[in-house]
Amino acid sequence: MDGTAKCQFLVEPIPMPQWLREVEAANLGRVIKGDDAQVRFTVDLAAENVRHGTGGPFAAAIFELKSERLLAVGVNVVVPSGQSWAHAEMTAVSHAQKSLGKLELRGCALVSSCEPCAMCSGATLWSGVERLVFGAPREAAENIGFDEGYKGEHWRQEFAKRNILVTGPLLGEAAVAPFTLYLQTNGRIY
Amino acid sequence: MDGTAKCQFLVEPIPMPQWLREVEAANLGRVIKGDDAQVRFTVDLAAENVRHGTGGPFAAAIFELKSERLLAVGVNVVVPSGQSWAHAEMTAVSHAQKSLGKLELRGCALVSSCEPCAMCSGATLWSGVERLVFGAPREAAENIGFDEGYKGEHWRQEFAKRNILVTGPLLGEAAVAPFTLYLQTNGRIY
Repeated sequence: MDGTAKCQFLVEPIPMPQWLREVEAANLGRVIKGDDAQVRFTVDLAAENVRHGTGGPFAAAIFELKSERLLAVGVNVVVPSGQSWAHAEMTAVSHAQKSLGKLELRGCALVSSCEPCAMCSGATLWSGVERLVFGAPREAAENIGFDEGYKGEHWRQEFAKRNILVTGPLLGEAAVAPFTLYLQTNGRIY
Repeated sequence: MDGTAKCQFLVEPIPMPQWLREVEAANLGRVIKGDDAQVRFTVDLAAENVRHGTGGPFAAAIFELKSERLLAVGVNVVVPSGQSWAHAEMTAVSHAQKSLGKLELRGCALVSSCEPCAMCSGATLWSGVERLVFGAPREAAENIGFDEGYKGEHWRQEFAKRNILVTGPLLGEAAVAPFTLYLQTNGRIY
């Protein structure tokens, strides 16, 4: 009951895994051309997140639409952070808004290794991005036991209404690789 | 493009407004009996958030179901934090999970001054709470220009499927007071 004494902040900082810091430093500003290549970049990050044991099999990135430059990365860090909302899309948006110093990510795309869950789909609407691009369909995550939630039958139309272009699923079986790896390493499903 | 240099963390800390810190310290562990009184507590916090200029007209709290004790509070800090996802329900869940040291808020209720938006509705599913109780209906927020997003026609059934009991809207016009106050103070709609 007196647990809040240890909490200085409303939201405590979430550390960036060291390997991700290195990946970001090496790739920030890099031009990655086309949806498939951008999604593949996030799918590779998702697999790395599993390999390093730093979270679930999900990753996301923010790209500048016009230049196709990488602006920020994010991964799922739910279990290590103890924060149920710390999905890949959430941390990518948060990290991008902070590092770019702007609340609305106009002129940007949110690229994710997997179709966003109900929460991340809502968060995408509020982030200001103008495109959502994703790899694996929700069923791929559900097949290994993740609950993706309910975002309504007409979610794509709701994105269209707000002028957010949605593209996905992409990459086919290649996008499922992080999930297969996660199962093999006995990752925690929550 | 080199903006991330100033970001040490994947998610940067979000400060707790000083007045909220004092409210929490004074009320932590307090028993507030019944849904109406618990919602009224969050509606009062939402109005305080507007008065102090520390964010949007929304607040939330985590209560222990059995004892009806207050475990954590949260408010909307989107504009001051520069983080589009920093809604009241998100910060309440984050703060509770950190201060209680548990990822799943079993045995807890999420109480909100307003019906959760699409993102916060999804986040509620992942938080582990067993009840959602709210004050104002989404239309009250939409009436002053907030976009609440799309969470599908059957969202209440989806909560029921996951054994999360939903109660609301509650308090009628009293729950709308923070929105009226926000309009009067020319609060920013985003």
